Amino acid sequence: MSSPQVREATPEDSALILHFINGLAVYEKLADEVDTNEAMITETLFGDNPKAFCLIGEIDNEPVGFAIYFYNYSTWKGKYGIYLEDLFVSPEHRGKGAGKALLVHIAGIAVKSNCGRFEWSVLDWNTPSIEFYESLGARAMEGWDIYRVDGENLEKLANNE
Amino acid sequence: MSSPQVREATPEDSALILHFINGLAVYEKLADEVDTNEAMITETLFGDNPKAFCLIGEIDNEPVGFAIYFYNYSTWKGKYGIYLEDLFVSPEHRGKGAGKALLVHIAGIAVKSNCGRFEWSVLDWNTPSIEFYESLGARAMEGWDIYRVDGENLEKLANNE
Repeated sequence: MSSPQVREATPEDSALILHFINGLAVYEKLADEVDTNEAMITETLFGDNPKAFCLIGEIDNEPVGFAIYFYNYSTWKGKYGIYLEDLFVSPEHRGKGAGKALLVHIAGIAVKSNCGRFEWSVLDWNTPSIEFYESLGARAMEGWDIYRVDGENLEKLANNE
Repeated sequence: MSSPQVREATPEDSALILHFINGLAVYEKLADEVDTNEAMITETLFGDNPKAFCLIGEIDNEPVGFAIYFYNYSTWKGKYGIYLEDLFVSPEHRGKGAGKALLVHIAGIAVKSNCGRFEWSVLDWNTPSIEFYESLGARAMEGWDIYRVDGENLEKLANNE
């Protein structure tokens, strides 16, 4: 087995990316929430001026996982950061370093791009991932809660109703 | 008093934006963490291909607050979203609707851009803001923790050390 490699995804990977997205959703016990398809993946990740970016992890030229990230902004530092939206390695390929290879690759992009930080979210019951992330030097940002408006409430807010 | 107005920030607003950033940091009890300046604000928010965007709230043509947002990505939905990094209204101008006007404006951008969601983070002790956000239809995303790597640990990760 050669060491895991990371490459940029291309539009031809859209079906593969959808496969990984579904795998991740099952793992996170959120399979019912997946509401995307190949066409939407192609349009959003590979259209004009994309704002989110996908990497594919491979072992012996076989795709084993993926990561999707975008740039966020630290007002305090006046610098961009990178936010990792998703990271997934197929269960049968875990423990071979592909997840770490993806994280290392993105950390490299962050450093090269003069980003001040690299962040992601973790489900609080996901102890194996939390231990893995802490082993890489990540720390939990205590004291912050994320709020979300979507669907009908987003329309209402946009209309100031 | 006329109703609050929202306009896009310009490079000439960099000093004003820095003033608001410092005001927000004092409010969030994080004043020591501000490490930006006018030049960095100009470069990151008004340079080539900016990834974060600033709006100014005004009452009677006087700037009273600001918001900074960027686009994130919902893998489940195959859609972009908007993340509000910062929202601040000067203490002497609170209660006049400027904060809500900024949120409504950004929600409008989200809807027009076919974004699936509009999100932001709140310090968990900030009850007035939480009540305000919940009144607008936002809900807390339970069960997720944010992890961050920065500084020396980010360099180490990038170098796979």
